[in-house]
Amino acid sequence: MPSISEKGRKMPASPIRKLVPFAEAAKSRGVKVYHLNIGQPDIETPEVALNAIRNFDQKVVEYSHSAGILSYRKKLVEYYKKNDIHINPDDIIIGAGASEAILFAMNSCMDQGDEVIIPEPFYANYNGFAINAGVNVVPIPSSIESGFALPPISEFEKVITPKTKAIIICNPNNPTGYLYSKEELEVLREIVLKYDLFLFADEVYREFCYDGKKHYSVMHLEGLDQHVVLIDSVSKRYSACGVRIGAMISKNKELMSTAIKFAQARLSPPTFGQVAAEAAIDTPDSYFEKVLDEYLARRNVVVRSINQMDGAYCPNPSGAFYVVAKLPIDDADVFCQWLLEDFQFENQTVMLAPATGFYATPGKGLDEVRISYVLNVNDLKKSMQCLAEAIKVYPGRTK
Amino acid sequence: MPSISEKGRKMPASPIRKLVPFAEAAKSRGVKVYHLNIGQPDIETPEVALNAIRNFDQKVVEYSHSAGILSYRKKLVEYYKKNDIHINPDDIIIGAGASEAILFAMNSCMDQGDEVIIPEPFYANYNGFAINAGVNVVPIPSSIESGFALPPISEFEKVITPKTKAIIICNPNNPTGYLYSKEELEVLREIVLKYDLFLFADEVYREFCYDGKKHYSVMHLEGLDQHVVLIDSVSKRYSACGVRIGAMISKNKELMSTAIKFAQARLSPPTFGQVAAEAAIDTPDSYFEKVLDEYLARRNVVVRSINQMDGAYCPNPSGAFYVVAKLPIDDADVFCQWLLEDFQFENQTVMLAPATGFYATPGKGLDEVRISYVLNVNDLKKSMQCLAEAIKVYPGRTK
Repeated sequence: MPSISEKGRKMPASPIRKLVPFAEAAKSRGVKVYHLNIGQPDIETPEVALNAIRNFDQKVVEYSHSAGILSYRKKLVEYYKKNDIHINPDDIIIGAGASEAILFAMNSCMDQGDEVIIPEPFYANYNGFAINAGVNVVPIPSSIESGFALPPISEFEKVITPKTKAIIICNPNNPTGYLYSKEELEVLREIVLKYDLFLFADEVYREFCYDGKKHYSVMHLEGLDQHVVLIDSVSKRYSACGVRIGAMISKNKELMSTAIKFAQARLSPPTFGQVAAEAAIDTPDSYFEKVLDEYLARRNVVVRSINQMDGAYCPNPSGAFYVVAKLPIDDADVFCQWLLEDFQFENQTVMLAPATGFYATPGKGLDEVRISYVLNVNDLKKSMQCLAEAIKVYPGRTK
Repeated sequence: MPSISEKGRKMPASPIRKLVPFAEAAKSRGVKVYHLNIGQPDIETPEVALNAIRNFDQKVVEYSHSAGILSYRKKLVEYYKKNDIHINPDDIIIGAGASEAILFAMNSCMDQGDEVIIPEPFYANYNGFAINAGVNVVPIPSSIESGFALPPISEFEKVITPKTKAIIICNPNNPTGYLYSKEELEVLREIVLKYDLFLFADEVYREFCYDGKKHYSVMHLEGLDQHVVLIDSVSKRYSACGVRIGAMISKNKELMSTAIKFAQARLSPPTFGQVAAEAAIDTPDSYFEKVLDEYLARRNVVVRSINQMDGAYCPNPSGAFYVVAKLPIDDADVFCQWLLEDFQFENQTVMLAPATGFYATPGKGLDEVRISYVLNVNDLKKSMQCLAEAIKVYPGRTK
């Protein structure tokens, strides 16, 4: 039997999916499971996007341009302009989700053995994309005590080598919800220029900022046109995860003319998804106002509830729809499985993502979990009640 | 300025797209250009697929299962059963086109520096996928004189090394239209077992067989369950290139459990495309009968016309909708550009794909072009008239 690849062996199983069989078993025992483990919002996709699909009137579903339908890219230019980001359609390559966009970007500027620095905890799939591209992830620590703020410049400099090619940030952050300030991004600007690195910024949660804070994009940084690669997606913005439409955006012409060759090899991004995403740009502001109010209320429920639990702590992040919380537990993987296998409160339990999967450093995140606040306030309250009861009786409780 | 990657530099520009600016210039001079360069059929997508999209009634466009929507995979099982291919839903991973499926397959069984053998000429993007996965393509020659039949076993054995991990075939073949016989596939079976290799078969043109010949799938070969990887796509079958739905199919459990990790990292394939593709399985047989009659008539026009041209030769392939023809020309790249830049007949010209882009061996295919017969018979006749006139007056004519 022929053998599978080394990189295939290295690929991590998805940290948010490995508990799925235990959740299914719980459900089959009649236990209600609150899913706070995944980033699949319950918010409705805007009507304007769905109507565009329902009115699709082409007779032949043709390949689009490899970089994406031009009318969509032109409309995206307008969307970014509203966000004070000034680009041209040629600066955009549409991907099948941010996932494909980040693979284009990594493959275009990194070779086997090159290194990318990422503050941890980080979006777990960056690991998979790095392995896919043959690139080594070098984590640097951010900590729950500082709310997962950007690590100081010294932490970056400690790990920079001649193999370092890029830094990846996610802003607002998945899994921590942390919103980087202008000052923090200025620090990144300094490092990137000093060591001549690429700066990848995953800004798919741009719209999800709370407490009156405003999102500051890496595209606003001065003098970084050759360095910055913006990674974007419509999945969360329009609660349209299944359309699989993202983008890689850069003003670096050499990088884009390289990335387009990877894009041409796979011919084109999905046509229907692009049609929906183009129409979604006309989503009225009232939609976002309502959604933001909803998420803010949810965040407040989660943060308040956790901080009321004995021995637990949760920062109050200003973005996205995630928090990483610290719990009085010995091992988050064991705890999250126990929640599904051995615990119930009023015939209900909660499914969380162990934070270990978001750290590249072994042993980190053992007493942390990621909570996605993607359920309505009532369900969240019940979930938090379950969690409060659970940590009272969990056999591996630490304090 | 940070530098791009070595693999990015190695990525070839698309051979079918590099002439696009010359075609556009011709059009802006008022010259009608017949596009025989790309595999984008003019056939209408089945109504049943488009209606499924028009009736999409979900409120939230959610992520699907990473391997694809279960109901779609179940329906695919039925589709394959009709083709005497017997699989389970777990043997299928849906990709964003065959492109993503082949990347999953390559990454799951090959590492940097591993080798894959492909008879040339071959689908040009295999090169791009191989570079993407860090894999080296080792071409072996098939020739126009034999109609591009499978090279003899000795040609494979000549290039097999400890680094050889797989063989890729495309059947029916793009770019040659050649349909491999059962006997040829039995030869591959022997090599694959003897050297313990994977056998990737791209069968996206399965339905497009002419002259009463029947498609024989690698899935019909005995004792190859651990070796065979079927690559498929709905793009050509239902003239739905833009839906971006393909599949990787294998009964090798270790391979599939590796591939699903790559699939999970990118979350899910496009939802809308899957909905259309699932509905498309109900396309009536009458659709295919009509389409096949149409393609057969087209093939006959092209093959007959070329063989009537002085100094030109074209085999009569039994599958897909391409031919590779030999023309009395010095350099196919120069010729194809000249057709667009310097030639017109009755204010018309033709756009072809130089065959050089389908060979990995430098200098091969210089007097060959690929012709996609994706236009109606009348337009094809006019195109062939243009081509006949062109080779009479082309300055680089060789005989």
